[in-house]
Amino acid sequence: MLSEIVAAIRPPDELAMERARALHARLTKPAGSLGALEELSVRLAGLAGECPPRLPEPAVVAVFAGDHGVHAQRVTPWPQEVTAQMVGNFLAGGAVVNAFARQTGAMVTVVDVGVASPLTVPEGADLVAANVRAGTRDMTVGPALTRDEVLAAVEVGARVAADHVGNGVGALLTGDMGIANTTAAAALIAAFTGTPAAEVTGRGTGVDDVTYARKIDVVATALDRHRPDDTDPVGVLAAFGGLEHAALAGYLLAGAAYRTPVILDGVSAVAAALAAVAIAPDSRHALVAGHRSAEPGATVGLRRLGLTPLIDLGLRLGEGTGALLAWPVVGGAVRVLHEVATFDSAGVSEK
Amino acid sequence: MLSEIVAAIRPPDELAMERARALHARLTKPAGSLGALEELSVRLAGLAGECPPRLPEPAVVAVFAGDHGVHAQRVTPWPQEVTAQMVGNFLAGGAVVNAFARQTGAMVTVVDVGVASPLTVPEGADLVAANVRAGTRDMTVGPALTRDEVLAAVEVGARVAADHVGNGVGALLTGDMGIANTTAAAALIAAFTGTPAAEVTGRGTGVDDVTYARKIDVVATALDRHRPDDTDPVGVLAAFGGLEHAALAGYLLAGAAYRTPVILDGVSAVAAALAAVAIAPDSRHALVAGHRSAEPGATVGLRRLGLTPLIDLGLRLGEGTGALLAWPVVGGAVRVLHEVATFDSAGVSEK
Repeated sequence: MLSEIVAAIRPPDELAMERARALHARLTKPAGSLGALEELSVRLAGLAGECPPRLPEPAVVAVFAGDHGVHAQRVTPWPQEVTAQMVGNFLAGGAVVNAFARQTGAMVTVVDVGVASPLTVPEGADLVAANVRAGTRDMTVGPALTRDEVLAAVEVGARVAADHVGNGVGALLTGDMGIANTTAAAALIAAFTGTPAAEVTGRGTGVDDVTYARKIDVVATALDRHRPDDTDPVGVLAAFGGLEHAALAGYLLAGAAYRTPVILDGVSAVAAALAAVAIAPDSRHALVAGHRSAEPGATVGLRRLGLTPLIDLGLRLGEGTGALLAWPVVGGAVRVLHEVATFDSAGVSEK
Repeated sequence: MLSEIVAAIRPPDELAMERARALHARLTKPAGSLGALEELSVRLAGLAGECPPRLPEPAVVAVFAGDHGVHAQRVTPWPQEVTAQMVGNFLAGGAVVNAFARQTGAMVTVVDVGVASPLTVPEGADLVAANVRAGTRDMTVGPALTRDEVLAAVEVGARVAADHVGNGVGALLTGDMGIANTTAAAALIAAFTGTPAAEVTGRGTGVDDVTYARKIDVVATALDRHRPDDTDPVGVLAAFGGLEHAALAGYLLAGAAYRTPVILDGVSAVAAALAAVAIAPDSRHALVAGHRSAEPGATVGLRRLGLTPLIDLGLRLGEGTGALLAWPVVGGAVRVLHEVATFDSAGVSEK
């Protein structure tokens, strides 16, 4: 399945991009006055292969949930069962991702790709049950996942994206939940960018100094143990996990294959994006950086990806919250190409 | 009317703010993980005097349009009649502000507070006809407005805000249109902050180097001629105009009096906010900085106001476009206080 997806990913359509640039010059606004939104709309025209590209709606935020064996190394004060409890909270509509989704009109889908604790699914709630294994192994002891487990999780993510695109979704937003998953994300970003552990590891939920020092040490130890080869992205994902990062990579790659924009949330999405781009470099053209997470690894990864975030408000929650805040901005950027009058059509004088 | 509005503006309710902070600590998310949105929601609780404050919806963006006598000094290559033509474009729904309003679900109201050229109002379109005079006088020759004209324009803005709040609007967004109005905005910001002309004057629609140098010189000349007294905000508005800045100041003050959040757009809104805060310092608590305009004066003014923008994407269009992009973010911040489950209610373990 992965090879088919990768084969379907195309470079951007230069002609559609050129047409978007030319259209911008005729719209009733000073040239360049929409700042970063103009280039964003041009990129999305290139992805879609048409100008204007379709509006990025409806949108879904897929929250991939998984647990992490490295939790045993005390990288966080939160108990592991919070992952399962928060999945219940998402399904009940009580989390911030749900509130932001209602604010913006996006759908939420919750995917168990690797939760370790038993889940309580509220009556009538819609969980995508696709558990590959009950959490990863501890990356400081051995590989977090086998290669087959990585590929299974990638396929879960790709199928979620394919199902939603098949149902008419026009924008795929990333979400994630997994106690200790910023540790895995930091290791992945370190591995794919060749950056030292201390520069990509953050405080996650806001850990204290002692835990933070231990977390950096854990990431450094894991990097040292696995000596990752960044030309083998499946091997890197196997070394550090997590299942949600592998699933997100599949989700991104499928979005790119279907020429559908993927709005990245925070540091876990950035880690997955580095994996996706290592697998298929042209998948980068489908990616929109929703926001700049407070996690330092997110900034390191976005720089490597060449992506500038749309929102920069110090969020560090995950779940898809930053992607949801960015989605109306992406919609606005595309809508301009559909709906704004030209100088000629509106009878507005030019300078 | 102005004195009644000013008398109704209250300091923020500290108890409501304390309750919002306490609620944040119980919601199912790590403390502080929503970054700047947490403090924003606390401020809005203080403004409303209750926790949670009401959702900031529905929203209206009021686009105040006016012309500027200083246009005669060739501070822009755009002909003055573009102001009237763009008003027609707004009323026909063809401008970027209309596209962004449709994207987010906000209403648009267009107010002629000082357009100089004849307006063509499309059949069925709803223009607020409140023209105080057909453009300001040239600030380099004499005062742009009389004090009575300033007060009349302030009243126009205040009435627009009062009408919308009376109709149930929960968020007032600022918009503006006026060829040459970044020149007036720069002069106002220079006057209220004591900043040299060269540091607050920008390229507006993107003027060339020769025009830019002339524009700085025009602002400096006007400042030198009027020697503004920043303790006399009506006098400062009279010196430089424009009618839309005075109307925006009234709109902001009325928003504050009605304890309704006002989301500022770009440099014209910032100039008006400095005037409003000079008139009634507590009006600051109603203001949310929607975005950071590319105009340097916006950053100077926001710093003086102590406001941090929500969106920073290099926009320099005006019309209300930056405020519209920020509105869903403000809505999300408030919605969290209404809808997110607590650790107790959701059965989620704490660290």
